[in-house]
Amino acid sequence: MRPVISPGWTRPARPEMSGEATYLRHHLRGLDNWNPTATSAGEHLQQVRRMDLNECPYPPSPKVQAAIEGVFARLNRYADGSCPELAARLSATTGVRVPNILFGPGSTQLLKCIIEISAGPGDNVVSPSLLWHRFHGIYEALEADATLVANRPDGSIDVAQLTRAIGNRTRMLVVITPNNPTGMMLSEDELRHVILQTPDNVLLFVDEAYHEFAMHAGGPDALRMLQRERSGPWIVSRTFSKAYALAGLRLGYAMCSSPEIANAVRLMSSTFVVSAFAEAAALAALDDPDYSTFIVEDTARERSRIIEGLRALGCEPMNSVTNFVSADVGRPGIDVVAAMRERGIRIARWAYPEYGNYIRVSMGAPEDTDAFLDALAEILGTS
Amino acid sequence: MRPVISPGWTRPARPEMSGEATYLRHHLRGLDNWNPTATSAGEHLQQVRRMDLNECPYPPSPKVQAAIEGVFARLNRYADGSCPELAARLSATTGVRVPNILFGPGSTQLLKCIIEISAGPGDNVVSPSLLWHRFHGIYEALEADATLVANRPDGSIDVAQLTRAIGNRTRMLVVITPNNPTGMMLSEDELRHVILQTPDNVLLFVDEAYHEFAMHAGGPDALRMLQRERSGPWIVSRTFSKAYALAGLRLGYAMCSSPEIANAVRLMSSTFVVSAFAEAAALAALDDPDYSTFIVEDTARERSRIIEGLRALGCEPMNSVTNFVSADVGRPGIDVVAAMRERGIRIARWAYPEYGNYIRVSMGAPEDTDAFLDALAEILGTS
Repeated sequence: MRPVISPGWTRPARPEMSGEATYLRHHLRGLDNWNPTATSAGEHLQQVRRMDLNECPYPPSPKVQAAIEGVFARLNRYADGSCPELAARLSATTGVRVPNILFGPGSTQLLKCIIEISAGPGDNVVSPSLLWHRFHGIYEALEADATLVANRPDGSIDVAQLTRAIGNRTRMLVVITPNNPTGMMLSEDELRHVILQTPDNVLLFVDEAYHEFAMHAGGPDALRMLQRERSGPWIVSRTFSKAYALAGLRLGYAMCSSPEIANAVRLMSSTFVVSAFAEAAALAALDDPDYSTFIVEDTARERSRIIEGLRALGCEPMNSVTNFVSADVGRPGIDVVAAMRERGIRIARWAYPEYGNYIRVSMGAPEDTDAFLDALAEILGTS
Repeated sequence: MRPVISPGWTRPARPEMSGEATYLRHHLRGLDNWNPTATSAGEHLQQVRRMDLNECPYPPSPKVQAAIEGVFARLNRYADGSCPELAARLSATTGVRVPNILFGPGSTQLLKCIIEISAGPGDNVVSPSLLWHRFHGIYEALEADATLVANRPDGSIDVAQLTRAIGNRTRMLVVITPNNPTGMMLSEDELRHVILQTPDNVLLFVDEAYHEFAMHAGGPDALRMLQRERSGPWIVSRTFSKAYALAGLRLGYAMCSSPEIANAVRLMSSTFVVSAFAEAAALAALDDPDYSTFIVEDTARERSRIIEGLRALGCEPMNSVTNFVSADVGRPGIDVVAAMRERGIRIARWAYPEYGNYIRVSMGAPEDTDAFLDALAEILGTS
């Protein structure tokens, strides 16, 4: 029996289509552009508290700066996209073999390449319905037959329903821990359920963009569990964008259970896709563990402040372990986002209609937390 | 009547497949890894003349260095992937509207995204058979039904046969000018033929990675011709990797005849795919036209020297207008590549079996030209 499935997400209506663009695949006609990084007229980075994109509020480690300056003289050369030094370093710390590790310009770019190795048009992927909406864009782009399993009422991933939704035609199961936009992670038991209940003929893809925050919060190590407990195939994706303050660098990576899987992703991606800065900067960031510890600890402190502040204002924040917090603010999120933006603070709302009262705020520096909570009190009329 | 079609390219044999990786799409099982940027043990960039990847031998303009240094402080932030200043600048010089211009981490990454908007599994794409072999990888990755039209005996693209190969099911026609690995460009008449003979229900994709070199060599401006003479849809792709010495930066762009086409490519690509360095460095490079003129002129001078030197050694160089030259060296290219590599010089051979005697050498500094020609004379036994 199939579980209750909720699409959970609906694509905005498209503009009237000409019906003539037959050179475009049917599902790609009449698309809008979506640019979350766009700044409106007069809005400049330095004047705005950018708390909408789950970025780190601090620049990277000073060691990264030195590494970047050393790259200039060879910027005319293609970088080795296999990032051999970095791959060896990650291999040493994770136990994943070098040929099974690959890199892309952010894990975002890899997400589509990864899903595409299993899912062509009509191929079945099982996924939570509530997750970063780029996943919905990827399912749409690939014309995948995505079975979207409703999350639990508290927003967490319903792992029992998820694995129950696996059918004969399922090629891949997607989980995200911690998940976006909820900020919640899977427990060790939940992860074990997914690892053991996903059959060996289904590729288990675990996206861990917020891995380092989850570790700091005492979460289970998904990779170690996959290595020890899963007999079937798996992929884990991670990024340097968050805990290493390198969102602008564009470097993410995937670790796979076999070189065959890694090579399939490599063909879907591109050989010359990683910049010359990427490996040098990532190695320098790894050379400064105190700095990433500072980022993770600072994030945890501001997260507690934001969660407490939201509660004090009568909102219902979710139990985030990441560098962002989502909350039910009791009124349309779209209005709160607009009111915040008038005050020079960028936050996000949820793209899911049934969560219309939810906002998502990224952790900033302590003064950003103050500004956000003050503004929210004002907006909610409780100040 | 269909023209004579030659696949021209055959995938290397794959290792024995397990036959069990059903979670991978069938055509992606048992793939090898291919890494042209890999350096072998003991081989370091500074000790090797790297003349195999069509890179510029000089670092970028000093203005780029200053721009890059200014980026560090905001490297924790996602860059605006729409590169608004750069798009406005390119729009002003080309007349292509800003919403029709999009960016990726190198035009290489965009190639697959572009072809994917027209070609799903089984969809027909018409293409020259002789072109950069990443195209073959893309056709394979997408399971496209690629009609590969044989190039003329001299290696040039046979535009008459190409447009004749367009059928009722054709979604896209691919041309590359200048082409790689031949280095040859289409004439104005040939371009006009393609532009006018590709029906309006077929997307015409012109890849121009070596555009600036072709302009310097007096070639036709494909974009201007498309804008003035084509009534149907088109895409032009270009890059900052070659004439701006920014291969390691990873920035390419596509200009489209409509925002609908651009948005389809954007969905196939990724919002957060361009680094924070990319736009700043590209703007700085455009601010130093003397430097890119120096690169293009220096390249032309060394190209003439290489072509003359090859002829003097009894080889048959092709009529390249780019930063590389291919030539029939009268013996297996694979042997010449190996002998060059023993001498610390990296060059490439052609991946096409029927061109087994061809090598491809990228333009270097004058001393690289000297070293290459001396080594070749030695290898061919004519010194």
